[in-house]
Amino acid sequence: MANTPLIFFDPFPRTDAMVFTPDVQAACAELGRVVSHFGSRAPDDLVESLLPDVDIIVGQTAMPAERFDRAPNLKAILNVKANWEPNIDYGEAHRRGIHVLSAAPAMAPAVAEYCLGQAIALARGFAASDRLFRSGHERYGIAGNGTAYSLFGADVGFIGFGNLGRALLPLLQPFGCRVLAHDPLLSDRYLDLQGVQPTSLDGVLSKARFLFILAGVTSENEGFLDRKKLEMIAEDASVVLGSRAEVVDFDAFLNLAGSGRFRAAVDVFPEEPVPQDAAFRQIPDVQFTAHLAGGMNASYARIRDMMMDDMRQILKGHPPLRMQKAEPRQAAMARSR
Amino acid sequence: MANTPLIFFDPFPRTDAMVFTPDVQAACAELGRVVSHFGSRAPDDLVESLLPDVDIIVGQTAMPAERFDRAPNLKAILNVKANWEPNIDYGEAHRRGIHVLSAAPAMAPAVAEYCLGQAIALARGFAASDRLFRSGHERYGIAGNGTAYSLFGADVGFIGFGNLGRALLPLLQPFGCRVLAHDPLLSDRYLDLQGVQPTSLDGVLSKARFLFILAGVTSENEGFLDRKKLEMIAEDASVVLGSRAEVVDFDAFLNLAGSGRFRAAVDVFPEEPVPQDAAFRQIPDVQFTAHLAGGMNASYARIRDMMMDDMRQILKGHPPLRMQKAEPRQAAMARSR
Amino acid sequence: MANTPLIFFDPFPRTDAMVFTPDVQAACAELGRVVSHFGSRAPDDLVESLLPDVDIIVGQTAMPAERFDRAPNLKAILNVKANWEPNIDYGEAHRRGIHVLSAAPAMAPAVAEYCLGQAIALARGFAASDRLFRSGHERYGIAGNGTAYSLFGADVGFIGFGNLGRALLPLLQPFGCRVLAHDPLLSDRYLDLQGVQPTSLDGVLSKARFLFILAGVTSENEGFLDRKKLEMIAEDASVVLGSRAEVVDFDAFLNLAGSGRFRAAVDVFPEEPVPQDAAFRQIPDVQFTAHLAGGMNASYARIRDMMMDDMRQILKGHPPLRMQKAEPRQAAMARSR
Amino acid sequence: MANTPLIFFDPFPRTDAMVFTPDVQAACAELGRVVSHFGSRAPDDLVESLLPDVDIIVGQTAMPAERFDRAPNLKAILNVKANWEPNIDYGEAHRRGIHVLSAAPAMAPAVAEYCLGQAIALARGFAASDRLFRSGHERYGIAGNGTAYSLFGADVGFIGFGNLGRALLPLLQPFGCRVLAHDPLLSDRYLDLQGVQPTSLDGVLSKARFLFILAGVTSENEGFLDRKKLEMIAEDASVVLGSRAEVVDFDAFLNLAGSGRFRAAVDVFPEEPVPQDAAFRQIPDVQFTAHLAGGMNASYARIRDMMMDDMRQILKGHPPLRMQKAEPRQAAMARSR
Repeated sequence: MANTPLIFFDPFPRTDAMVFTPDVQAACAELGRVVSHFGSRAPDDLVESLLPDVDIIVGQTAMPAERFDRAPNLKAILNVKANWEPNIDYGEAHRRGIHVLSAAPAMAPAVAEYCLGQAIALARGFAASDRLFRSGHERYGIAGNGTAYSLFGADVGFIGFGNLGRALLPLLQPFGCRVLAHDPLLSDRYLDLQGVQPTSLDGVLSKARFLFILAGVTSENEGFLDRKKLEMIAEDASVVLGSRAEVVDFDAFLNLAGSGRFRAAVDVFPEEPVPQDAAFRQIPDVQFTAHLAGGMNASYARIRDMMMDDMRQILKGHPPLRMQKAEPRQAAMARSR
Repeated sequence: MANTPLIFFDPFPRTDAMVFTPDVQAACAELGRVVSHFGSRAPDDLVESLLPDVDIIVGQTAMPAERFDRAPNLKAILNVKANWEPNIDYGEAHRRGIHVLSAAPAMAPAVAEYCLGQAIALARGFAASDRLFRSGHERYGIAGNGTAYSLFGADVGFIGFGNLGRALLPLLQPFGCRVLAHDPLLSDRYLDLQGVQPTSLDGVLSKARFLFILAGVTSENEGFLDRKKLEMIAEDASVVLGSRAEVVDFDAFLNLAGSGRFRAAVDVFPEEPVPQDAAFRQIPDVQFTAHLAGGMNASYARIRDMMMDDMRQILKGHPPLRMQKAEPRQAAMARSR
Repeated sequence: MANTPLIFFDPFPRTDAMVFTPDVQAACAELGRVVSHFGSRAPDDLVESLLPDVDIIVGQTAMPAERFDRAPNLKAILNVKANWEPNIDYGEAHRRGIHVLSAAPAMAPAVAEYCLGQAIALARGFAASDRLFRSGHERYGIAGNGTAYSLFGADVGFIGFGNLGRALLPLLQPFGCRVLAHDPLLSDRYLDLQGVQPTSLDGVLSKARFLFILAGVTSENEGFLDRKKLEMIAEDASVVLGSRAEVVDFDAFLNLAGSGRFRAAVDVFPEEPVPQDAAFRQIPDVQFTAHLAGGMNASYARIRDMMMDDMRQILKGHPPLRMQKAEPRQAAMARSR
Repeated sequence: MANTPLIFFDPFPRTDAMVFTPDVQAACAELGRVVSHFGSRAPDDLVESLLPDVDIIVGQTAMPAERFDRAPNLKAILNVKANWEPNIDYGEAHRRGIHVLSAAPAMAPAVAEYCLGQAIALARGFAASDRLFRSGHERYGIAGNGTAYSLFGADVGFIGFGNLGRALLPLLQPFGCRVLAHDPLLSDRYLDLQGVQPTSLDGVLSKARFLFILAGVTSENEGFLDRKKLEMIAEDASVVLGSRAEVVDFDAFLNLAGSGRFRAAVDVFPEEPVPQDAAFRQIPDVQFTAHLAGGMNASYARIRDMMMDDMRQILKGHPPLRMQKAEPRQAAMARSR
């Protein structure tokens, strides 16, 4: 059995319906031996029993430095969540040449689609128009379009240009938008070559007619979009909060949106589930969705697809191609819920 | 004054705010002499007084064959509505080499944006999600996304592939959709070269996950999407009625949408304004907008831009480039409201 | 037989191998009755015998106004050459609603490919490099690339932006070129929307690193690129003469190219065949091709494809989609060889 | 001086004109202290004297494991050649979190342009056409295009889909080619998503009308395109040898090309410089260039640009974005000249 790869699934909070469907089970069975644990993180005794033989871990099993000593065959950790936890010694994995990969890119297309759809819905006033029609107060044509504006040729701002920004950009390209992007981790030349205009944070906030907040939260940037920054947002801009809520002062954000300062779609919250009695549930005109931007069936299909593709590559001794490599420093800093 | 071009604006129901803004007035003044009439169609005596000298008519002034005899300098009729009326002898204009042009392409980008935005809103359930959140019944992540699906890689159907289809296609391209298009006026080879798959009407109806009804109404196709055809629409498809309501059996359409047979966004109605007491106003889940898809400020700016561009071309003796040429047979057949 | 369409092929100088291949013959036979004449223009008696019944003429049969009187069923003239002759009363055809169409667009892709290939060959010095290698004087790598430059990010100039320019533009797009275009028939707004920068003739001549001469010759623009204009071409630019030779002072052009003022590829000549003893045959470094840019098998396949597609459309009473409509004024002015 | 970064340039065979131009010197001076050595690999005593303080090495300085012990501040090795040498312990660098980056992507656009230009030149017969014209034996139009064919809609084959393939693919996209790609290191799903059709080696060889040999040479694939494989190439295909000569049986390749079995452009040789008396210099019709595809001024500008961009990123503690990361296994296997 030494030659048969051992694949260990410990992907909680992911479920088998998300990452271990029958096609995945069959594909893994062709590659080697599979042990799986769902419903919780695998208990230590199970983990320890597998470490000596495991080749691939799917999940975010705790791997401090000493566990790597006990896992001489470990080739890769495939994290099928969208973010990192601090329970892996990323530097040690890196030192040992163990691939540490994340499925974060899998969610990005669905989030980008959400962002685009909500941006158009806000700018064109779909929700209000439907309400007016049902109440018998609709106005037709240009008379009803007094506050409508278009994505075509608009100035668009991205705060953050990681997976989400890179997935959203091509969807905007046919609209001929001018995209201003701010990302402190990326060089101006790189942003240029990506086809966006590198811009200061204040520049993006103040100039964007459509603002997409796409930044992941780290230990360094929580709440960096405070009230002072949010007040720089252009009057009547359409703002989509598409990444993690912790990057904004959430109360200030909803306060400004609710007062009509700008239009907003919100998919993420500091606390989920949101308390039943949270007053902000009733703020008019904000478009709320309960963390629905990324986690849909199509995204999980993408996770399974890229996971199996890279699992096969790694077991063949080839480089992984689809999942995102952990940068040790960034992975350590990333904040998970 | 024989050498100074005479430009006559008679564009009702378009208003001066739509097609005769200060910049247009200034631009026309540089080109020649302008006479304008707003608020109604110009009275016959005004029209007749101008015919001997007029070079350009902007509008849909009645032009039977004999009026062309009295308008020896007439070079072009620029229709700034989106459709044709039967009050012009299109064949006679064509015979005399008079350009008869329409601003129909100007509306298409805004309608395409509406179509895309509503398609995503329907597939991703934005309206329902917002309602659930406000009522405190939201479910998070995959639990709330049970009925959500994506445009990425989807089968899309176009009924009609004119200006609207050609404007919508590039917006779908980044989603990697397979677009099946039905248009009885277009050859299969042409559709192939446009990047869509020529398909029978029944094929489009039954296979499309996203169905865009984009056909203009003519004297030959009113109501061609009858109940029998509508019942062929794939279960739970997202359907956007983006062109003229008369192409469908409207009651059957709303009946099927309201019963959950498919998801729908409706922007056009057989009668506008819709009667206050129309029961269909309350059909749940259909996304209504009161003819807002095309007629927004950005579209009128486009109309003015293409109108002035082609006016200058024509007065220079160059071919028009931006507005759409009337095909005499199709113009005669087009049904206007 | 009144109901069976009559299709008359009189396409000299096109041959049956070019436009009447077996597949075309079969397709036409399905549409109606075919009469064809090759090797010369059809004699008058044949033409006259067919006029009463003919529906479609493929070719450039002389059609003065009175012949139209004798051709009551004529629906379309499909010109399968790339240019117009003055033997048709284009205005009369237009008046009668007879489609007059040209296959000019069919040649454009092949010419665009020629232009791109020669541009790279000139800028990268392929011909000289091969000669040096064969003579044993090659230099390797950067040492041999002293005069090489790249299309990537280069300033490109188009003189003329008709079918050829529109076919070449997409081939340049992946190179990130800035394309400056001059075309006196087109408005600045139109050129903007096409994605090129409208520029004066002098601006294009002086700024382009790669210059594509793509203008068709008319009665108004023969020799407009005279020596004075040609001397404005940027030092060491790569110039491709891809359209008709008559638009340039040919001797001046070759004189400047031969003296190293700019690099050049030449596919067209004032007189073809070029006299055997023409001294310019030996001018070093100019890349000569004997009118090979457009007329290749793939282009004739395209002609046949668009001709049959539009023939079917027209016989169905639908608008043609593929061939280029004659603008009566431009067709009358076009100069043919 | 402990805080001032130390940047060490030891990039032989690159010269200062290639990688240490005045703008680079100025940019480096803003970042820290620079020591440079050109004309040869830096002597050991110089290297050893710098190891304790060096932050960035630009070049391919020998770095066995023990040297890393003596370089506690080393953050990155920036290799400004296009390939790897075995004088670095890549695994040890990886273990220590030292970025090992290559400028290989910088050459790819120039090589892709060369490949495209030569492919068109071969298919369209530019060289032969010019010779015929000069000798007075040219034939015009279709008569001279008997053996010409087009890239439009053609089946194209890539052997290798690394940097070169990824740079060439977008240049082919406007031609509507079907691209079949073979690369043993890449998964089928990955190739699918890149827009190419994963194909066996034999499939690519036999089906491609245009064949691009783009594979880098490793210790495992030298000469893998032996005579038997080369004989599978489609009759009269256009073949561009754009990567390293060692991947083919060079004599067999030229033998087949010279006998007219296929058309060929060759830029690389097993031995450079090629011996003066090499008989193959005179093989007719093959298009030779002396290793000119990549190493041109524009490519070195790209190298400098990506090198400085990533140097700044790394010194800021941010991830590099532009240069290519060494995969330890592949870097160790790569064969250098």
